[in-house]
Amino acid sequence: MNSNISFHGIIAYPITPFTVDNAVDLPTYRHLVERLVANGSHGIAPLGSTGVLPYLTDEERDAVTEATLQQVDGRVPVLVGVSHLTTAGVIRHARFAEQAGAAAVMVIPMSYWKLTDDEIFQHFDRVASAISVPIMAYNNPATGGLDMSPALLKRLLEIPNVTMIKESTGDVQRMQALRQLLGEDVAFYNGSNPLALAAFAAGATGWCTAAPNLISELNLGLYEAVQRQDLAEARQLFYQQFELLQFIVVKGLPRAIKAGLEILGQEAGQLRAPLQPLSAIDQQELRRILDRVHLPFSVG
Amino acid sequence: MNSNISFHGIIAYPITPFTVDNAVDLPTYRHLVERLVANGSHGIAPLGSTGVLPYLTDEERDAVTEATLQQVDGRVPVLVGVSHLTTAGVIRHARFAEQAGAAAVMVIPMSYWKLTDDEIFQHFDRVASAISVPIMAYNNPATGGLDMSPALLKRLLEIPNVTMIKESTGDVQRMQALRQLLGEDVAFYNGSNPLALAAFAAGATGWCTAAPNLISELNLGLYEAVQRQDLAEARQLFYQQFELLQFIVVKGLPRAIKAGLEILGQEAGQLRAPLQPLSAIDQQELRRILDRVHLPFSVG
Amino acid sequence: MNSNISFHGIIAYPITPFTVDNAVDLPTYRHLVERLVANGSHGIAPLGSTGVLPYLTDEERDAVTEATLQQVDGRVPVLVGVSHLTTAGVIRHARFAEQAGAAAVMVIPMSYWKLTDDEIFQHFDRVASAISVPIMAYNNPATGGLDMSPALLKRLLEIPNVTMIKESTGDVQRMQALRQLLGEDVAFYNGSNPLALAAFAAGATGWCTAAPNLISELNLGLYEAVQRQDLAEARQLFYQQFELLQFIVVKGLPRAIKAGLEILGQEAGQLRAPLQPLSAIDQQELRRILDRVHLPFSVG
Amino acid sequence: MNSNISFHGIIAYPITPFTVDNAVDLPTYRHLVERLVANGSHGIAPLGSTGVLPYLTDEERDAVTEATLQQVDGRVPVLVGVSHLTTAGVIRHARFAEQAGAAAVMVIPMSYWKLTDDEIFQHFDRVASAISVPIMAYNNPATGGLDMSPALLKRLLEIPNVTMIKESTGDVQRMQALRQLLGEDVAFYNGSNPLALAAFAAGATGWCTAAPNLISELNLGLYEAVQRQDLAEARQLFYQQFELLQFIVVKGLPRAIKAGLEILGQEAGQLRAPLQPLSAIDQQELRRILDRVHLPFSVG
Repeated sequence: MNSNISFHGIIAYPITPFTVDNAVDLPTYRHLVERLVANGSHGIAPLGSTGVLPYLTDEERDAVTEATLQQVDGRVPVLVGVSHLTTAGVIRHARFAEQAGAAAVMVIPMSYWKLTDDEIFQHFDRVASAISVPIMAYNNPATGGLDMSPALLKRLLEIPNVTMIKESTGDVQRMQALRQLLGEDVAFYNGSNPLALAAFAAGATGWCTAAPNLISELNLGLYEAVQRQDLAEARQLFYQQFELLQFIVVKGLPRAIKAGLEILGQEAGQLRAPLQPLSAIDQQELRRILDRVHLPFSVG
Repeated sequence: MNSNISFHGIIAYPITPFTVDNAVDLPTYRHLVERLVANGSHGIAPLGSTGVLPYLTDEERDAVTEATLQQVDGRVPVLVGVSHLTTAGVIRHARFAEQAGAAAVMVIPMSYWKLTDDEIFQHFDRVASAISVPIMAYNNPATGGLDMSPALLKRLLEIPNVTMIKESTGDVQRMQALRQLLGEDVAFYNGSNPLALAAFAAGATGWCTAAPNLISELNLGLYEAVQRQDLAEARQLFYQQFELLQFIVVKGLPRAIKAGLEILGQEAGQLRAPLQPLSAIDQQELRRILDRVHLPFSVG
Repeated sequence: MNSNISFHGIIAYPITPFTVDNAVDLPTYRHLVERLVANGSHGIAPLGSTGVLPYLTDEERDAVTEATLQQVDGRVPVLVGVSHLTTAGVIRHARFAEQAGAAAVMVIPMSYWKLTDDEIFQHFDRVASAISVPIMAYNNPATGGLDMSPALLKRLLEIPNVTMIKESTGDVQRMQALRQLLGEDVAFYNGSNPLALAAFAAGATGWCTAAPNLISELNLGLYEAVQRQDLAEARQLFYQQFELLQFIVVKGLPRAIKAGLEILGQEAGQLRAPLQPLSAIDQQELRRILDRVHLPFSVG
Repeated sequence: MNSNISFHGIIAYPITPFTVDNAVDLPTYRHLVERLVANGSHGIAPLGSTGVLPYLTDEERDAVTEATLQQVDGRVPVLVGVSHLTTAGVIRHARFAEQAGAAAVMVIPMSYWKLTDDEIFQHFDRVASAISVPIMAYNNPATGGLDMSPALLKRLLEIPNVTMIKESTGDVQRMQALRQLLGEDVAFYNGSNPLALAAFAAGATGWCTAAPNLISELNLGLYEAVQRQDLAEARQLFYQQFELLQFIVVKGLPRAIKAGLEILGQEAGQLRAPLQPLSAIDQQELRRILDRVHLPFSVG
């Protein structure tokens, strides 16, 4: 495995909580980040989809970036999401993240208009030449609206500081094709929660997930069982958390994680409209699922 | 047909041109708007997908809105796109458009996270209660990332100033189902260029399209033939323009319209990255298609 | 339009009724065919999907072919479905149909394994060289499991007696692309009921449909209104029948037509398992739709 | 695991070879079956998709069934495919297979018309009550044309002798949902070659595959590594065969296996039209892939 890869294992996404006045609630945010670090996450990834990055102003994004790096304080590496619809916007945020101390930045090519492969390549190339930290190229057609083929992802790796790939199509065959094409020396990361076991079996270096906000012990346990090659234990731990992983994906991560945190007695702030809280029925269902997980949750 | 509907026929989308310094090029923009009005368009719709609305800052959007209303100067009604990822953002832009003199505003619920039907309804409801002008609810899963069912669109019409529906799934069966569900008194608009003939046959009140930037006479001619019930002439005119309509959709409207304008000898400015000009091969193909259309293009 | 094309307008599919002993019920079948001819259909197409062709033995197919030609007795042209999973099977049935007096045969390339374009071409080519009557190449991925591109359909027309194309993808854009590619001299037929109006607007020569079993007057009325270029009347007649057309497609033609015939007081025989009658709720829904159609149905 | 389940591990599909006169080539067939048994397959499954079951007459299917059971002669259990479009047809073939000595039969609900869940349930129920051997219910929308939900598959297990499920959607999330719903006591089998590793990780009891015709040692090696919980070895063996597994699926199993057998120096007979041999380019590609696999292939 490439020696300059700082990310592995469980890379946790915090949510971005808001106050009742629709401002980012930084004290609550820092508490949630602290909880993820304290619970043993191997990395922290602010401003992903879970962190509702596209709903934040430039200034709010800066504040969240700084708060994360201050709170984590070097205990684990931080991967900052810096995506923006325009190339100029990504560069602005990537520079800020680098200066603030991010170990790497994550870029998903967001589309309104579908971009050609050449447009995507130039987008990454311009961003990469404006910063020095490594870039994780992130493929998630369900949120970003663009599907990057394994061939395009391989081409992106020709750019010197594009060194990591995160795959979130939810199709393990795609992940396998990527691993086949890139070879075993390129680190790839899984961003699809219901594929946690299959992706580790296929050779993923890490799992980027919002689930540690709710069930960090199960997430870490699965990773450790795979490391020990204890497939029976990994399978048992996976099916124990599978229902929850499906639920948070189907209901949307920011809404489902906020509801789950509150069920666990944690402060989680408000959502920003148009996002609305889970319905009462969905909250009951989530409570039922969390009860069935049967694990003592440590409170950060 | 509802008497307070001001839009019908050919509602033209201008592109948003940029300077070499990546600023909005307002003089070129006003020239392009003038051309669309002069060529006979029945309405002007700035800040749609064609106008790369999601790539503009708030201030740039304000400037484009004002420039459009000043240039059109009441000759035809103006429909301003005011979509934003957050509800607060839509309200801000809708209020600006109303004050600037827009006849109506167009709202597409943009997604990063998929929104529930209730979230979409509340999004529209809050926007509607903040303004007095009519709202056109716009369904276009390919760009907005959300697909609103006919049933949800019908529910949106319960909000007093949501009075128009624009459908751009590209599926005429969906449009027919919508017309069936809403009844013939609700105006629906077609936003899918290759469905121009089928949508008029199905009863659409208007066609929202970027094509008049390149072939306004064919677009207007099709509408007029349908009005005269001259189906043979409408079909002939449709197939004359069908290849171009397919091309501009497949290649992306901002890129294809800019290239077409330049082929026609018009100034069209720069694109904003990540968008890049059409490849040389695509430009040749477009030139070939425009040559085949065989019509003298009037220059605005 | 090509002078040797014998099919136009409303080409009606009879169902294949069975006795309680699971044999083909030929007397009931002949009565149903007679009714379609008497009601004014411009052509009869036995052994299509509606006629559950894939559920019949070779001998049953022969008997249905003969019964149809005897009953129709030259009053309108007959288009016999001769599809089979193997090439040898199609040839066997195509020869039988030709000898029995079919004006043309219809071939849908049925798949279990997806066939390549070359395999499909050779399949049609071998069949065509074994008979002298014209062939209608039929594209319907939803039942046949294979989707033939416009380019492949064009290639099939190079085979001398492949002279007609029937398109049933349900996508009017596909139909338009086909018409554009083939030119206006090639007859294409619509096999998608909910596209009846859009397909005629796009230039279809005929509509192959099971609907005349239930609402022949509306089907014929729509065709005639289009012929007269009375678009307003065509649109009104289309929306009058649209709900029924959607219902019979969604519920499956053999089951829905059988249920509809019984509601109209017609004998329709049994279905062959695994097909089962519509549920009681679906039958009520169909009765409600047929009541709303508000037309006096003539009984054959 | 349920004690009356006789199938596990690698369950191999033979192809059905034809003579130049388009008859089933039984001597070659028996040689190919012998080779699969000799190479260590844990079960033999004739008359699957690989065996082109839908292209055979009833009599040919009987002959293949008998030849298989005679050749295998009790060394490993035989799972006979008995699917047919009609319910009566399945019963006929299931009874024949039972009488001939099949350990179990496999039924995929083949569609021309999409069947409702109730129709599928009754189809299985009638077949099950006509025989005494266990039934494996097989879900493969790509060939059968019908997609059975996990809920429907669970319902089928209420029928006493429906005891095994085979899943071939190619989506490991579906397989996991099935395992979650059915519990760990129900045996499920993987029929999707590119999911071999992911499915075993998810808990599959066996892998039904045509690959042992070409690379039995790699297939068996993967299964054994998983049994030993040697995940690193399993992953290495999986990626060694992944390219071949993808190739045979994309090109179609009967065509790809025949070509591969010939490259390995085995007699594989003719295909039945409309199936045609792989193109010369595809054959070269397959030779290249087989060369890269770098294993000494034992010849049966």
